[in-house]
Amino acid sequence: MLFNSSQHAVVLGAGSWGTALGMVLSEFFDKVTLIGRCPEQCAEINSFHTNNNYLPRVQLPKNIAASVVYQETKDAALILFVLPTSATREAATELATIGIPATTPLVSCSKGIERGSGIRMSEIISELLPNNPIAVHSGPTHAEEVSAHLASAAVVGSQNLELAASLQTVFTTSYFRTYTSDDVAGIELGGALKNVFAIAAGIISGIGLGDNAIAALVTRGLAEMTRLGIALGGRPETFSGLSGIGDLMVTCYSSHSRNNRVGKALGSGETLEEVTERLGMVAEGVPNTLSIYEAARKHDIETPIINAVYQILYEEKPAQEALVELLTRDLKPEISQ
Amino acid sequence: MLFNSSQHAVVLGAGSWGTALGMVLSEFFDKVTLIGRCPEQCAEINSFHTNNNYLPRVQLPKNIAASVVYQETKDAALILFVLPTSATREAATELATIGIPATTPLVSCSKGIERGSGIRMSEIISELLPNNPIAVHSGPTHAEEVSAHLASAAVVGSQNLELAASLQTVFTTSYFRTYTSDDVAGIELGGALKNVFAIAAGIISGIGLGDNAIAALVTRGLAEMTRLGIALGGRPETFSGLSGIGDLMVTCYSSHSRNNRVGKALGSGETLEEVTERLGMVAEGVPNTLSIYEAARKHDIETPIINAVYQILYEEKPAQEALVELLTRDLKPEISQ
Repeated sequence: MLFNSSQHAVVLGAGSWGTALGMVLSEFFDKVTLIGRCPEQCAEINSFHTNNNYLPRVQLPKNIAASVVYQETKDAALILFVLPTSATREAATELATIGIPATTPLVSCSKGIERGSGIRMSEIISELLPNNPIAVHSGPTHAEEVSAHLASAAVVGSQNLELAASLQTVFTTSYFRTYTSDDVAGIELGGALKNVFAIAAGIISGIGLGDNAIAALVTRGLAEMTRLGIALGGRPETFSGLSGIGDLMVTCYSSHSRNNRVGKALGSGETLEEVTERLGMVAEGVPNTLSIYEAARKHDIETPIINAVYQILYEEKPAQEALVELLTRDLKPEISQ
Repeated sequence: MLFNSSQHAVVLGAGSWGTALGMVLSEFFDKVTLIGRCPEQCAEINSFHTNNNYLPRVQLPKNIAASVVYQETKDAALILFVLPTSATREAATELATIGIPATTPLVSCSKGIERGSGIRMSEIISELLPNNPIAVHSGPTHAEEVSAHLASAAVVGSQNLELAASLQTVFTTSYFRTYTSDDVAGIELGGALKNVFAIAAGIISGIGLGDNAIAALVTRGLAEMTRLGIALGGRPETFSGLSGIGDLMVTCYSSHSRNNRVGKALGSGETLEEVTERLGMVAEGVPNTLSIYEAARKHDIETPIINAVYQILYEEKPAQEALVELLTRDLKPEISQ
């Protein structure tokens, strides 16, 4: 076991998921620090033990503190990255500049791939902190439910098996169960690819199709995620697990997902510009679709759903037309040879 | 192509799914006959082209007729079994007695296994009509949506590849897409096993858990379905397809499913006796759980979810307690070796 309870864990990111994971860790570690960007938010966490903008009505344990000071990472026994994918490179650079010990395990808990480079979050972190042990954590886990202690399960992956087993203990409570895996790439790719299918599922609802169409889309989406995920370095069985189909389902069936909501609006006839303006933000799946479409072309993988979403988002193809094409492709066997 | 449009297709069963599949077939065949049990229902279908008890507000095509006379099967080019699993043996016996041609393809479209023997529907049919070509058809398809022409996808399986390809054409319309497979056992087992997990998903909702728990349950259910399904003769990839995870999702996420509703009531604290009395019927998953639990023990397969549902249904174990045990088992790798 690599950790003991008297140590200090740090979570980079004080959003809803960072806070919920901090709550999980606070059951093992005596002290957990969330690193946020906003001094007022940190003061609220430290004084009132709440984080109302992100997890309303949740009382945080007293051993969770918050700070804007990255130096706090220096004595940490464990550092979690729970940041938007666009902020991960900057945070890893900061840790490298501070000079955290090369023995500190780093865990990436963000879903997505880097815009432009198309690389995974753990790859960015390893690029900047090449000597630190690295792991990833992912699964079908709405922060609101984890923070309410509703039963949830996830998976932690590392090629360092001792680290994976130690993190499993740290990431397990009476209501939160974590399985282990050594397929780091597969776990991260499931989380990154699912956003495109969540947009597609939203489009299907927006068009007015039903449960049958959503189930078919998610099932064919799993096949497509698995094909592309294998080409990008994941193992097939990982995509049938919690970080693959599990997360894909929870995102495609939940109206809480931003990507799903963007898809729904597109399916109802709004343009991407209109949706983005109305929601006041870009859902992560929108830029992801571009990177993922390019990766699929580069590896020459057949990805009809990703292609349809790409055409709707970037080639102004009407959603209805792209979907009809998807459903009327040549008849073929279910499992491609 | 084994079929031509001037031929006559027969559907055994005039319930909602038999009628919806009849509508799909009526786009290819000039004449489709539904064989029902009730003369009044057949008269309604023949006179008014409606089947209001099963598919309210749906207008049936004029080339669909209905009859209670099994002799109608004698000149059929294709016969579908769309019956409760408990009625399949009797229907196959009747066809054998009538003496249908040994060349007539038979397609089983029912989900479940026979109580007592534990065998699949296509095995019952083959036992009684051993020379007829046989296929199965399954997928995530609510009858209400198919009859409303909402996009849906399914899979047809036969070891006779020419039959599978011909059925694919017959079972495909602008809104209904059918893939082919040769894994008959895998397709049927997905449909039979999913009911147990639908009860489990219902229990989870009934207890008051959330989306995370349902996603974890369905994901672990897929692993369990795949393990047991392989032992019973299916192929792993089939369980990741439309008849496996597709149907599992649509059942576990839909409140239309009887099995799901029974589970929900059990999770809320009702006993099986109370639920059965209140709903006025036994959900297919209840007897299925018994057969499937026995099959799992016989093949020595680890099935924690099936075991929990079995204990709740047949050993009066409180649902909450069985679920807590499920979520707090020994920590382990996600993919068992």
